[in-house]
Amino acid sequence: MTVAIIGLGLIGGSAAIDLKKRGFASRVLGVDNNPLHEQTALRMGIVDECLPLEQAVAEAQIVVLAVPVGAALRLLPQVLDLVEQQVVTDMCSTKEGLALAVKYHPKRKRYVAAHPMAGTEHSGPWAALSNLFDSKAVILCDVEESAPDALALVRQLFATLNLREILMRSSHHDVHAAYVSHVSHAISFALALTVLAKEKDEKHIFDLASGGFASTARLAKSSADMWVPIFLQNRENMLAVMDTYAEQLGRLRQAIDAQDEQALHQLVAEANRIKRVLS
Amino acid sequence: MTVAIIGLGLIGGSAAIDLKKRGFASRVLGVDNNPLHEQTALRMGIVDECLPLEQAVAEAQIVVLAVPVGAALRLLPQVLDLVEQQVVTDMCSTKEGLALAVKYHPKRKRYVAAHPMAGTEHSGPWAALSNLFDSKAVILCDVEESAPDALALVRQLFATLNLREILMRSSHHDVHAAYVSHVSHAISFALALTVLAKEKDEKHIFDLASGGFASTARLAKSSADMWVPIFLQNRENMLAVMDTYAEQLGRLRQAIDAQDEQALHQLVAEANRIKRVLS
Repeated sequence: MTVAIIGLGLIGGSAAIDLKKRGFASRVLGVDNNPLHEQTALRMGIVDECLPLEQAVAEAQIVVLAVPVGAALRLLPQVLDLVEQQVVTDMCSTKEGLALAVKYHPKRKRYVAAHPMAGTEHSGPWAALSNLFDSKAVILCDVEESAPDALALVRQLFATLNLREILMRSSHHDVHAAYVSHVSHAISFALALTVLAKEKDEKHIFDLASGGFASTARLAKSSADMWVPIFLQNRENMLAVMDTYAEQLGRLRQAIDAQDEQALHQLVAEANRIKRVLS
Repeated sequence: MTVAIIGLGLIGGSAAIDLKKRGFASRVLGVDNNPLHEQTALRMGIVDECLPLEQAVAEAQIVVLAVPVGAALRLLPQVLDLVEQQVVTDMCSTKEGLALAVKYHPKRKRYVAAHPMAGTEHSGPWAALSNLFDSKAVILCDVEESAPDALALVRQLFATLNLREILMRSSHHDVHAAYVSHVSHAISFALALTVLAKEKDEKHIFDLASGGFASTARLAKSSADMWVPIFLQNRENMLAVMDTYAEQLGRLRQAIDAQDEQALHQLVAEANRIKRVLS
């Protein structure tokens, strides 16, 4: 099968590697508006050929959109305009805006909305990895809007990437994603800003970076190109979760300020319940 | 050499393992007010013998205090009361309160204040690990207050654990630790509280836990027994850093609310500078 990957970054590149290696794709076509990404993906053997968008869609049986969510909002309707019987899916971190953008598109049934919950803080084809998606979750949204054959093919694609499937409405997806992924990035960015603003002598940050900071600040290395559109696309959920988060942080601050050992103990013990859901 | 470890948890247990294995200690004595910890440490071979505090201090050449900081405030003066020529060090995460607690103690020069910046979110002797401290940093505080022979022996102990040494005033240590370690734990606890409060259906949290959440929420598994005293001991620095942190989070929230793509891009790019100090 010929697979077209639009967007040859970490996510698209990693998918390309395993779809080829595991036999789902006999030929992988790449599309990227950055010539350096195309050259790199070709040189790394991630794609077999790079083509203009129209030609790649025409030659593929399945098209995978793996671009930042702002670009996806513009590209998804364009891709569906080009589609005959091809199947289209995406790997974007927000789903509701995309759902609205193609709600009345005559080719809507050829599209299956998807979000594989995997990634690293690195970006670009250089960051692409085999096994990135293994045993992670993929959220498929609004599947009743897709044609059965399109859904079946997309399921096969994500099964090849060893992703566990979860079905959800796109609006529900965006609320969940705000809680478990998007707000984690916001608080990590804020932590980095806090430390960088204070510690002018960066030697010390580096030396002390073994106390849990590296874990919490890891996501702060994530790219603005990817995350700014996510925050804006998922704006209302983000604002709601950030407000809840600020309240919870305020409860901790209040207990520390009041030296209320008992309240603080209770809050931390409550937070420890996260053990039950994190391995 | 005989080493007494007071507190047989993750930190004391891990130190015991490598001090024995790497030949610094010929005999390791354990002290813990929890009989289950003592039994476990004995059964795991982490210590050679468990003794009451007085006897362990009397038989040791060096005493390592590895208890939560609240307990250390009470124990450190008691241990120094028992000391003749023995050397005493500690592995606590806050340093200024301890420094004040023994400032005028007649045996102050036998004590070397230390904080090895290493750990995991687990606790108890079950969590003890070989190599836990390898290539991490140890902060030695106010070293001019210690006798040269005491300092030399403690340096040898931490060199055995493969810790890189940094010298700092204890007050300075506590500010730095608030920024790079303590506040990371507070924001992780707040994240766990946020998600747990919202997501009653924990199945979904688990399923979506691959989107960066696991990394940011890892520290929320850390024990209340360890962290409540740290937050309270380092209260003023914590409050200051939490306020700065809330401001930075507010800047992100404001840019998202205003849909100010440029401001948001600038904030994330600024946060990305953390790459220079985190590997």
